[in-house]
Amino acid sequence: MSEKIYIGVDLGGTAIKVGICNDEGQLLHTYEGPTEADKGADTVVNNIEQYVRQIVEESSFEWEQVAGIGAGVAGFTDVREGIIILAPNVGLRDLPIREILEARLGKPVKIDNDANVAALGEAWGGAGKGIDHCVCATLGTGVGAGIILNGKIYQGFAGFAGELGHMSVVPDLEAIQCGCGENGCLETVSSATGIIRMANDAVARGERTTLSQVEKIMAKDVFDAAKEGDEVAIRIVNRAAFYLGKALAAVAVVLNPEVFIIGGGVSKAGDILFNEVRSVFQKLTPEVSARGVSIVPAMLGNDAGMVGAAGLFTRS
Amino acid sequence: MSEKIYIGVDLGGTAIKVGICNDEGQLLHTYEGPTEADKGADTVVNNIEQYVRQIVEESSFEWEQVAGIGAGVAGFTDVREGIIILAPNVGLRDLPIREILEARLGKPVKIDNDANVAALGEAWGGAGKGIDHCVCATLGTGVGAGIILNGKIYQGFAGFAGELGHMSVVPDLEAIQCGCGENGCLETVSSATGIIRMANDAVARGERTTLSQVEKIMAKDVFDAAKEGDEVAIRIVNRAAFYLGKALAAVAVVLNPEVFIIGGGVSKAGDILFNEVRSVFQKLTPEVSARGVSIVPAMLGNDAGMVGAAGLFTRS
Repeated sequence: MSEKIYIGVDLGGTAIKVGICNDEGQLLHTYEGPTEADKGADTVVNNIEQYVRQIVEESSFEWEQVAGIGAGVAGFTDVREGIIILAPNVGLRDLPIREILEARLGKPVKIDNDANVAALGEAWGGAGKGIDHCVCATLGTGVGAGIILNGKIYQGFAGFAGELGHMSVVPDLEAIQCGCGENGCLETVSSATGIIRMANDAVARGERTTLSQVEKIMAKDVFDAAKEGDEVAIRIVNRAAFYLGKALAAVAVVLNPEVFIIGGGVSKAGDILFNEVRSVFQKLTPEVSARGVSIVPAMLGNDAGMVGAAGLFTRS
Repeated sequence: MSEKIYIGVDLGGTAIKVGICNDEGQLLHTYEGPTEADKGADTVVNNIEQYVRQIVEESSFEWEQVAGIGAGVAGFTDVREGIIILAPNVGLRDLPIREILEARLGKPVKIDNDANVAALGEAWGGAGKGIDHCVCATLGTGVGAGIILNGKIYQGFAGFAGELGHMSVVPDLEAIQCGCGENGCLETVSSATGIIRMANDAVARGERTTLSQVEKIMAKDVFDAAKEGDEVAIRIVNRAAFYLGKALAAVAVVLNPEVFIIGGGVSKAGDILFNEVRSVFQKLTPEVSARGVSIVPAMLGNDAGMVGAAGLFTRS
């Protein structure tokens, strides 16, 4: 038999993305189809099966070459038992997906949550390639993170490692309440949601900013305004960057990872964000813990989930 | 051959402590002799060799049963190469101690720094027995920590994991400079040094406290005064506890360890410290990250170094 291949499934609320990877984390072929979450669990599972068979058929590979199928799920998963506990956006609950897919496809199946597989994807085939220890944070609606130690996803004792968004970093006097119930979580300032909130607040306060002309402010509007020199927007981006830098400094002294990988929509702000994060990080981290440590943008974008899901076989 | 035994060496500036452990982390026999650091590296190495031979001779075990010799060193170590890079209190620098001891003793040798081996000792045979993931912090002159993941010491990319004492936790307005050069490190408030400094400051400010009658304030005086109801002392202990709780909350969201083990002189304060640390931790940690997580005192005291050094063989 020739080269082994690994199939990664990114199971989201709208689309199921399927990719074929070789054993070095290279994405060789992709396929995408609708999740059809509204039609129920049976349809979703049927779709996964069909797309996986489809991608191999379309490719130059043989079914026999498939060494395993990994899936990243937007929701809570029981990694050990291979069960989707709750994936609200996909309409799934208490689904023993590993058992079902293994029976239908005749191949070993592994699952994990989307933040962890995205981190593994970047660590295996993206910005962390060749790195043993890295922390991959995703700044989107919330702030999530995956911790990769010794090249593998680190789960923690109850599976809740990497909840970086809920590190309390904002001092009490400035803190607002987070969705988790605590005050001052990183997520309240360094997520897209946090940035939009700060912008709306500034406009509501009547501050002088070009953002007041935007009908429905998105995070990208704030970055664009900051790049144009809008002082209010710059202050908001710096605040998001400051607390992210502070949180990464706290992680650095404890874990001493080699690379922090920052992905998600907010990371698209680019240098205006990264330069400030790096500067705050250097300022707050003792030299010995910061030496040789870099903070870099994610490389794989939306492909990270497929690559990482495939990586569940070679890297865990 | 009968049961294997493991020898743990705790190499400190004043004394070399040697212990024999079985493969379950039980300390069966101990021996202690002077380091004689002032007489130079040769004498120190000779002493280690002699004490190791001595303890086996004194015990009921045979030399053949010794499966390995581990050493915990108060200083910087190159774990991979088995070299003591710098141990100022022991007067050692750039010493390839593994090679030397393996040649002299004819047994495999491993080394690590004292914070890591103490953490491993607690994880293997102490307060973390049976636990996969724990963080062991030592509150002494400074604040150090060892991170045990999957039952093994986690070193980080450059060997600087566990520098918990240098997490920046004190807000700018109250922060003082730490020995590392940064401001507001945990070590400035939650170490014995920090507690003594806060007590001296309070006395110098003329605050009403029984501590003003103590000639040279030690951390224990502050705990004793707090237990007697001295309000200034209670405030100081609460402040040390608050920032420790805050730092542990930051670690909890990232690593989700099962147990935090707190050792060192400051931990002897007992309930007055632990109750406050636990209360702050619960307040600052999202429920999902705090669930099932405990904060407990270290159990092995000064024996942790010997047990953990022996554990370098079975647990790494």
